[in-house]
Amino acid sequence: MQSTQISKSIEDLVRQSVYRQLGLDGSKASSAPNKLLVNISARHCHLTQEAVEILFGKGHQLTPKKWLYQDGQYAAEEAVTLIGPRSRIISNLRILGPCRDFNQVEIAYTDARALGFDVPVRNSGDIAGTPGCMLMGPKGYLKLDEGVIRAAIHVHMSPEDAEHYGVKDKDFMQLKVHGECGLTFDRVFVRVHPDFKLEVHLDTDEGNACGLSENTPCELKKS
Amino acid sequence: MQSTQISKSIEDLVRQSVYRQLGLDGSKASSAPNKLLVNISARHCHLTQEAVEILFGKGHQLTPKKWLYQDGQYAAEEAVTLIGPRSRIISNLRILGPCRDFNQVEIAYTDARALGFDVPVRNSGDIAGTPGCMLMGPKGYLKLDEGVIRAAIHVHMSPEDAEHYGVKDKDFMQLKVHGECGLTFDRVFVRVHPDFKLEVHLDTDEGNACGLSENTPCELKKS
Repeated sequence: MQSTQISKSIEDLVRQSVYRQLGLDGSKASSAPNKLLVNISARHCHLTQEAVEILFGKGHQLTPKKWLYQDGQYAAEEAVTLIGPRSRIISNLRILGPCRDFNQVEIAYTDARALGFDVPVRNSGDIAGTPGCMLMGPKGYLKLDEGVIRAAIHVHMSPEDAEHYGVKDKDFMQLKVHGECGLTFDRVFVRVHPDFKLEVHLDTDEGNACGLSENTPCELKKS
Repeated sequence: MQSTQISKSIEDLVRQSVYRQLGLDGSKASSAPNKLLVNISARHCHLTQEAVEILFGKGHQLTPKKWLYQDGQYAAEEAVTLIGPRSRIISNLRILGPCRDFNQVEIAYTDARALGFDVPVRNSGDIAGTPGCMLMGPKGYLKLDEGVIRAAIHVHMSPEDAEHYGVKDKDFMQLKVHGECGLTFDRVFVRVHPDFKLEVHLDTDEGNACGLSENTPCELKKS
């Protein structure tokens, strides 16, 4: 066996053992083509190259600081200050790169309440009619007319994963999180793409509500 | 019929109609002796009379500002400043009255992370071995050696409610919250007492995770 195969076999054995000890049905998970990752996305924004240049100066390019689990995606060195409707601010709002063709700010309800925003739950990119805000960078201000959302909980997966779980793009699934603050998210939006790696994205409210840590057992289930 | 009975009948009809429209099984809920309330408890503290006097001056008595749903409980006019381990603070931490025979600070994980606390999930009163903090009032400082917790999600109910749901004190139940951020809390701790009115207490992370509003349909279920 190649070393990646050996490592996957070991992972499978450990996973099956943990699931057995918890009295969970690990059969579906242990036969899964890919390991499930559940990660918390802290508040952040996606910007166009034009927006980056307004905020950081002509010709400025984002600098990757930390690569994320999805290929090619990164948290940038650059951060901005978010100014809400009552002039309350959140500083150090991280920019995720690479640049996109729209501007979008993703915050949790806790942030929204602190700022005095009334933000809707939306899937990424679906920003028509959402509130705007002001962003401040070292070289300029940018007024967004829309784009502030709470991102809906979602799972990225490949067509292979989708087949394994018996779901398709834009379906909803359940994510059961175990532990002393255990809960089940009933509406996890499915996003299927050949480039996607199996990963659920929670926001900080969702992650804190269930006390998610690196070792919290989680199960993805067809609704 | 007495007016309270008429009002309960109307409530039942409206509830049954809403549940039917949502395609939910409202039969259990509509036959319940008492209407289920799900409320969010923002961060707060409970103090002894001695602690109140240290913080607000000799002989000081708490002043009720807003009566809560549970009989005799109130949010006081008085608030304190909570100072965490890294000298970060939360101002305006509300005191809930009346005074108790122990001091306890209840914060959400979002607060705990902001302050740099590592707080455990506990049931109210179970504070042995939990972190302490410093409280600051207008007349003095109070150092707590323990008592900072994240309160576990719980439901208050009367023996009559417990009988209806088929549960007993210290059981766990499920709370299903509907809506676009729908989720099911799998470990709702049951507290039964003749003085209790049927009410689930979430913290702000839990309330924000499921986007709870006054009109969000919720179902309490035996696990």
